[in-house]
Amino acid sequence: MPNISIKGMQMPESPIRKLVPYAEDAKKRGTKVYHLNIGQPDIKTPEVALNAVRNANIDVLAYSRSEGSDEYRTKLAAYYKNRDIHVSADEIIITTGGSEALLFAMGTVADQGDEIIIPEPFYANYNGFATSSGLKVVPVISSIDTNFALPPIGEFENLITEKTKAILICNPGNPTGYLYSKEEIKKLAQIAKKHNLFLIADEVYREFAYDGAEHYSILQEEGLEDYAIMIDSVSKRYSMCGARIGCIVSKNKKVIQTALKFAQARLSPPTFAQIASEAALDTPQSYFDEVIGEYVERRDLLISELQKIEGVKVAKPKGAFYCIVELPVKNADDFAQWLLEKFEYNGETIMVAPAAGFYSTAEVGLNQVRIAYVLKKEELLKAAEILNNALKAYNA
Amino acid sequence: MPNISIKGMQMPESPIRKLVPYAEDAKKRGTKVYHLNIGQPDIKTPEVALNAVRNANIDVLAYSRSEGSDEYRTKLAAYYKNRDIHVSADEIIITTGGSEALLFAMGTVADQGDEIIIPEPFYANYNGFATSSGLKVVPVISSIDTNFALPPIGEFENLITEKTKAILICNPGNPTGYLYSKEEIKKLAQIAKKHNLFLIADEVYREFAYDGAEHYSILQEEGLEDYAIMIDSVSKRYSMCGARIGCIVSKNKKVIQTALKFAQARLSPPTFAQIASEAALDTPQSYFDEVIGEYVERRDLLISELQKIEGVKVAKPKGAFYCIVELPVKNADDFAQWLLEKFEYNGETIMVAPAAGFYSTAEVGLNQVRIAYVLKKEELLKAAEILNNALKAYNA
Ligand SMILES: Cc1ncc(COP(=O)(O)O)c(C=O)c1O
Ligand SMILES: Cc1ncc(COP(=O)(O)O)c(C=O)c1O
Repeated sequence: MPNISIKGMQMPESPIRKLVPYAEDAKKRGTKVYHLNIGQPDIKTPEVALNAVRNANIDVLAYSRSEGSDEYRTKLAAYYKNRDIHVSADEIIITTGGSEALLFAMGTVADQGDEIIIPEPFYANYNGFATSSGLKVVPVISSIDTNFALPPIGEFENLITEKTKAILICNPGNPTGYLYSKEEIKKLAQIAKKHNLFLIADEVYREFAYDGAEHYSILQEEGLEDYAIMIDSVSKRYSMCGARIGCIVSKNKKVIQTALKFAQARLSPPTFAQIASEAALDTPQSYFDEVIGEYVERRDLLISELQKIEGVKVAKPKGAFYCIVELPVKNADDFAQWLLEKFEYNGETIMVAPAAGFYSTAEVGLNQVRIAYVLKKEELLKAAEILNNALKAYNA
Repeated sequence: MPNISIKGMQMPESPIRKLVPYAEDAKKRGTKVYHLNIGQPDIKTPEVALNAVRNANIDVLAYSRSEGSDEYRTKLAAYYKNRDIHVSADEIIITTGGSEALLFAMGTVADQGDEIIIPEPFYANYNGFATSSGLKVVPVISSIDTNFALPPIGEFENLITEKTKAILICNPGNPTGYLYSKEEIKKLAQIAKKHNLFLIADEVYREFAYDGAEHYSILQEEGLEDYAIMIDSVSKRYSMCGARIGCIVSKNKKVIQTALKFAQARLSPPTFAQIASEAALDTPQSYFDEVIGEYVERRDLLISELQKIEGVKVAKPKGAFYCIVELPVKNADDFAQWLLEKFEYNGETIMVAPAAGFYSTAEVGLNQVRIAYVLKKEELLKAAEILNNALKAYNA
């Protein structure tokens, strides 16, 4: 072996994926595994999107424009308008998933060594994107005890330094399911303006707001135009995670010009997927009504089943399709691995995501897991039963 | 406007794309523009690839594995075997274009502040990927006077410091069209081993080697297994640039494990495009024979036409589909813009890429442009005629 060190920029391991080998072993042993660990919905992709690709008339599968095709961006602007978000096609850059939009947003607002404040627990891959860009994530803790509401403004202000370039929120939240109120967004806007920071909002779960609550986008907030950068994706909205299409949206021209340089370096977003995404905009409202109805039922069922389990604490999510669950265990990491390695209940077990990876503060969230309610109700019911029995066995 | 500085990590502007607005204006004026500026071939994508997507039976367009589907990686390993490159599926990570593979490779071998040595002129976006990762590109000049052959080993060794982590080459070369000989690869292997550096080879133009010359991959070089990282892409091979599928290949397990962390952070490569790329592996040899034959004719025509123009210097490319052309002008940047802004010949003009952006040493290549011979012969003939007349007018 050569004497080459590979630090790989200290990239963190994904807490969502690191248990995969154990799950594979469990399956090899014949154990059925319910996947509550990832946000891969079982919902069907709209036919209109799949058909557009089937019927596309392509001779040369060419690069598209780096910022995405004009047709798609124009139609996307109309979609936003319907949601009271007023942007034009040239305020949108199409990206390879929301993932790439996050990477571009970070690179646009910050230089190596700069800092970004993020309420935690947060979508774990924010860490990966920040690390690979050489940025520091500065967490501000939001607590399960207040259902992950926005931390007090003072706590943000305590963390702001010369190097702070942005605050990044996820709304509705993965992994919390928390939906920020209009008032909370206004508070964040105030901090951004006072301290000259960008406010980046990851709104990939926009459509998933429950119980009549309305999602309030940072792009709806007047006076925030120059500070607001919105991240979006078709992955969850149309259950087309495999497309890899997202976007970065901002009314700040300098932001778009700068993000475009990152987009140009990687040439273009995927062409087939842009065709599907453009067509997906024609998905009828009935599709969403059905999907949202289904998620609400799943959530209600899961939460009520979880609340029946002794020692389990869970807040009712108002959006997205995740919840953070506090368990009567010391080390949820160990418990999650044990579920796959050692446990089965009638030949079945569950896979959950240990929550520690969603916090960047050490030693926080050790007794929590994230559960994605992306499975059918019958399966969620079984999963809750398995969890109940597993906790008894693990703690015995 | 808020008082927010945006340095965007000093991302360089793409020399390939920065003239686009001028080209658009020219078209608006009714001038026909021949695009010699980008590597977007006009060659048809193999039907077998397009059909696979048309006929794919998809219900839920789901994330694939972060490293790409098992089926595709397995079939890809067989493709490499046919080219005397012996790798297994788990030594391959599928990426979103060769672009992403380059980004992952840089992040894997280096940390922020580290250095990578690259013979210049080089594919301009290497600069962008290095910049966004916080790495420094250290150029070693290869000259048009030696047809861009490998610079002497001593010149590499002069540049190696504590921070040097890798040498990156492009073979066959964009923008030079240079194909490294087996002996040159052996020399590079020697430096890598002696100084404990990774050798990264961008081999996306592997199939495009002309005049009976054989491409020698770094993965064919015995004893280099732990040092070699190969970058590949379907973009040019199957004229499916819009798919956005590439890969990073290495027999060094630590490299693959580390690159996988970058892959996991962005979840998965595009699903439709993986289907197309897997099917593309069944493209019959006759397709390549025809395509290579076509490129050779284009090259021969273009080079002989260029050599007829007074004051023009061009080396005959042995691979890929680009050439660096030295022009009798002081500032090729200005000339390229002038071609679009001020010039037309019978209502037509050409768009070329100023070569300075392919050098990272300042003040080098100022009188050179890169021409991509991705157009039909009749068009190339016209383009050369336009160039000839443009040079006369510009210098008058
Ligand atoms: C909060 C959040 N942001 C962004 C993403 C990235 O998704 P994609 O890259 O598929 O758009 C995800 C995926 O799970 C997510 O949960
Ligand atoms: C040398 C070289 N490497 C990599 C790429 C990236 O191509 P892609 O991301 O389409 O695979 C290109 C594209 O032109 C190239 O010329």
